[in-house]
Amino acid sequence: MSATLFSGIGELATCEPTLGDESSLGLLHDAALVAEDGRVAWVGRASDAPASDERVELGGRAVVPGFVDSHTHLVFAGERSAEFEARMAGEPYTGGGIMTTVAATRAASSGELRANAGRLLAEMHASGTTTVEIKSGYGLDVATERRILAVARELTSETTFLGAHVVPAEYANDREGYLALVTGEMLAACAPFARWIDVFCESGAFDEAESIRVLAAGVAAGLLPRVHGNQLGYGPGVQLAVEFDAASVDHCTHLSEEDLDALAYSDTVATLLPVAEFSTRSRYADARALLDAGVTVALATDCNPGSAFTTSMPFVIALAVREYRMTPAEALVAATLGGATALRRTDIGRLAPGFSADFAVLDAPSYVHLAYRPGSQVIAQTWRAGARLVAPRGEEE
Amino acid sequence: MSATLFSGIGELATCEPTLGDESSLGLLHDAALVAEDGRVAWVGRASDAPASDERVELGGRAVVPGFVDSHTHLVFAGERSAEFEARMAGEPYTGGGIMTTVAATRAASSGELRANAGRLLAEMHASGTTTVEIKSGYGLDVATERRILAVARELTSETTFLGAHVVPAEYANDREGYLALVTGEMLAACAPFARWIDVFCESGAFDEAESIRVLAAGVAAGLLPRVHGNQLGYGPGVQLAVEFDAASVDHCTHLSEEDLDALAYSDTVATLLPVAEFSTRSRYADARALLDAGVTVALATDCNPGSAFTTSMPFVIALAVREYRMTPAEALVAATLGGATALRRTDIGRLAPGFSADFAVLDAPSYVHLAYRPGSQVIAQTWRAGARLVAPRGEEE
Repeated sequence: MSATLFSGIGELATCEPTLGDESSLGLLHDAALVAEDGRVAWVGRASDAPASDERVELGGRAVVPGFVDSHTHLVFAGERSAEFEARMAGEPYTGGGIMTTVAATRAASSGELRANAGRLLAEMHASGTTTVEIKSGYGLDVATERRILAVARELTSETTFLGAHVVPAEYANDREGYLALVTGEMLAACAPFARWIDVFCESGAFDEAESIRVLAAGVAAGLLPRVHGNQLGYGPGVQLAVEFDAASVDHCTHLSEEDLDALAYSDTVATLLPVAEFSTRSRYADARALLDAGVTVALATDCNPGSAFTTSMPFVIALAVREYRMTPAEALVAATLGGATALRRTDIGRLAPGFSADFAVLDAPSYVHLAYRPGSQVIAQTWRAGARLVAPRGEEE
Repeated sequence: MSATLFSGIGELATCEPTLGDESSLGLLHDAALVAEDGRVAWVGRASDAPASDERVELGGRAVVPGFVDSHTHLVFAGERSAEFEARMAGEPYTGGGIMTTVAATRAASSGELRANAGRLLAEMHASGTTTVEIKSGYGLDVATERRILAVARELTSETTFLGAHVVPAEYANDREGYLALVTGEMLAACAPFARWIDVFCESGAFDEAESIRVLAAGVAAGLLPRVHGNQLGYGPGVQLAVEFDAASVDHCTHLSEEDLDALAYSDTVATLLPVAEFSTRSRYADARALLDAGVTVALATDCNPGSAFTTSMPFVIALAVREYRMTPAEALVAATLGGATALRRTDIGRLAPGFSADFAVLDAPSYVHLAYRPGSQVIAQTWRAGARLVAPRGEEE
């Protein structure tokens, strides 16, 4: 493959301090980037740029690493806008609405699931996301969980088996039966399509002992652990994640001092999902406490039809700055390098030589506009492995 | 002009109770709409639709009236992302940053101002907005205020003279001199390009007596009054607006019981600007108190480079549902009919026979998705006066 020089980069956020201004963002101004064979071959000052076969002029725009959306539930059918409307009118969120999506997903064909997920993925690409994790968890039977993961695997290598999302209605009086299924036949059917094992360790979902069984079975099947925890209240999720050396524990809305300490001395990332807190009108996670304790923080959309139906990482960043009091730089690092770390990936999340040439070009002079222009379309172009991601044009667009 | 039938509307929000389900949204399902000569000629059930020359099939999508963004500062130059970043790090917002934009705007050519405003207006069209109000207020000298309004008038008929935005630095020791200018030579130069007179009645800007002089002079010059008030603290703005029978008083973040009473017994709309509160991390206005008191509420972007740099009415609606506790229906009415009322317009804001055929087609089955899918691009198409608004394609798009 030929080399392409991206020139005229007004501001380049590398997320590699040694390449730029030594801040965590590693900022360069008047910069250029060379992509070759899908990887970053060179970054530096425009005046030092090497000759290249092809050239793309970016006219002073800002460039950031492509967003790594490390927590989504992208494969599902149906929608729950009526539930959302009721909740916004004051009805408390209990998570019970998941079964609505389970019923719709079981009834949908793989083609329908693929079309729905593909449409959302196209929105994500248009919003600057270049890597996406996708969980199962809306099937809750062997055939549907397997089908969801097969579709997910067509879209990403970062697939997560979340059969332990909730206990489905048909097992309401047989939790043991469902646990046996999730850790047995369902796991065996799903593991070939999954990289990760996940469990919703929360009051109303799975308790500590059950979560341990799920994670241990997944690890024994060759999957890597990650955990949903501490979303709706205090609980054992974080401690469990750290004990399993999980790549990430996600939500972290309610953390004790002990949880903060455990995370600070671990390799487990705290993945925060502010849109879930926005769309369920919940309290916001204490991101500052995590950052001040030295915990690695990731930001993700949690894209799902129940509690966080967004595809936009720029919106996540804007919310993190407003509500988490993260600086725009901290939020951008969390949405790129943080997400990569939450997926234990060392080939994405930075724009440094050897990393995948995954980046977003902003219709703006600085990455700060991701938070400064909330709700607006700030992403002009998205490139992955050195190739432009172009949204499919519908008949009307 | 020929008639066009828009068929396959899964859900049509008319904002005319008698046309639909008698809610304030006047919802119809399985509906159709006929546009003729730029106006709505007919709306009703699809099965009752008349024959038409042309037909546009909408495939079950939801249709809402085009958004009426009744408060923007769209004509300016430069940006203030560094100020935003500092403020988010804890520096209080004092409004002092306006002079940064004034300096950049004075230095910009009309062509630059036109290009910048046109780009933002295209974003607005893509987000479903069909009517936009544009204020001056970043010139603060005769030539630049006039130039801003001349550019604004090319883009909309809803232009507002806001020479009384702040007292510029060169008049810091001569407020009386600036008031004489704003109510004299500057007003005379700007009035031919403006429909409205506005004043920023706030501590740090213009006090009650000064605001009265500005509004009275504008009214004498044939302009209609509207007021910026009660944004940064309690003050006389609302009472003043009501006394002048202003079409709208905008911000209303800090309201006393007396302010609520005055609004309730007036024809003055309370225009709320939640993105300004989002992006300055201020408290949110008490929309429920206004609605419960029977005040007409409008929602607008306040699009400006200092305190609310967004073009997206769907984002405004999502924020109003989350933070103002408005229902999705209340927020949609406020963003359409409310905005029209804030501009004293009776030809827009509803999809009823005789109204302008201004509407947005959602990539969703219900208007609720405007709030349910925050930060995402929910608008599929925008039509104004029966014609599709298509975003200009840049070289790269």
